[in-house]
Amino acid sequence: MNEPARRQGRPPKMENPRGRILDEAAELFAKNGYEGTSLSDVAVAVGVTKAAIFHYFPNKKEIYEAIIVRTLQGLVETVTLAVEVDGDAEARLVRFMMAHADYFEQHYYGFMTMLVGYGGMENITLIEEARKLRDGYESLLRSIVTTGMKSGCFRQVDVHVASRAVLSLLNWMVRWYKPGHGSPASAFAKEYCDLMLGGLRTRQA
Amino acid sequence: MNEPARRQGRPPKMENPRGRILDEAAELFAKNGYEGTSLSDVAVAVGVTKAAIFHYFPNKKEIYEAIIVRTLQGLVETVTLAVEVDGDAEARLVRFMMAHADYFEQHYYGFMTMLVGYGGMENITLIEEARKLRDGYESLLRSIVTTGMKSGCFRQVDVHVASRAVLSLLNWMVRWYKPGHGSPASAFAKEYCDLMLGGLRTRQA
Repeated sequence: MNEPARRQGRPPKMENPRGRILDEAAELFAKNGYEGTSLSDVAVAVGVTKAAIFHYFPNKKEIYEAIIVRTLQGLVETVTLAVEVDGDAEARLVRFMMAHADYFEQHYYGFMTMLVGYGGMENITLIEEARKLRDGYESLLRSIVTTGMKSGCFRQVDVHVASRAVLSLLNWMVRWYKPGHGSPASAFAKEYCDLMLGGLRTRQA
Repeated sequence: MNEPARRQGRPPKMENPRGRILDEAAELFAKNGYEGTSLSDVAVAVGVTKAAIFHYFPNKKEIYEAIIVRTLQGLVETVTLAVEVDGDAEARLVRFMMAHADYFEQHYYGFMTMLVGYGGMENITLIEEARKLRDGYESLLRSIVTTGMKSGCFRQVDVHVASRAVLSLLNWMVRWYKPGHGSPASAFAKEYCDLMLGGLRTRQA
């Protein structure tokens, strides 16, 4: 911040500059909205020149897309790992929801950017990479529900409705949950899961 | 649109001009975001001058707030009426969710503005009137769940968790439901409700 402006300069040395840019941009998009954030704002937040930002990203839209892709990639990797542990469908659904909530809490601004920060709803066009990640994530969840129904652990439900319900509960957290205020997100996810499982169990507990 | 510009003019005669302004502004906020919409855009959409808009609203923020208040007022009135009919807690919860979904579908842009259109999440400050309406709405839902638990119709659950889950399912619809494409919103609400009730019933159906 104290360096003289370098108009066409290369970015100053910093660790993981792409990651730093995405972190700061996500926080700005989440707080001020996509339209309300300029590349200059991002440059100031990172502590580099606007030219340095252009060294990594040609425009704001690509920063936005990179945030979405990075957030989804991390989510899919983390949650996939969490549900791979042995266990029945019920245990795996609990792990799915809690791992999702943990990841959301740790990458709060990325989620906010993905799910809230882009004000104009009809302008959202997910790029192919993000769409594939999201589809894969939804498939993973549906496979857990389907496995549970086949094994008799869950009653027969519409797998699409049940899966969309689980993701609705988790995704809506962006609108009311604030990290660092009270319980961790995973505690709420566990409560939701208990409620959902009550609706999924073959016999009432 | 073909009239000559009237800079300080009174608005042209139209039925319910305030309502027309709110309708057009809600559609613009929903589609292009709050930041992406100017008062001039609203004036063009209504077919009046910008001065005519100022005759009714001093600024964009007050239009936004009026959309939220109008949407919430209508929602509370409609859903309250729907759940007042005799019936047990289960029947009333079904009616609550379906009436909410119907109202959402009929006032799609108002909901989008309220729940999506305002990109910068941390900038959202609900005015007192909107807060009271929302709190009253949440109380109504919690009272249905509480009644059901007292009557033995629902199992003992955390009333806040269950109510927040119901509203999460309904509210997240703004992110995937498009009116006029396939089933009505109330059909999805009914499916969610069946799933939720499975989790609430004392005995498994």
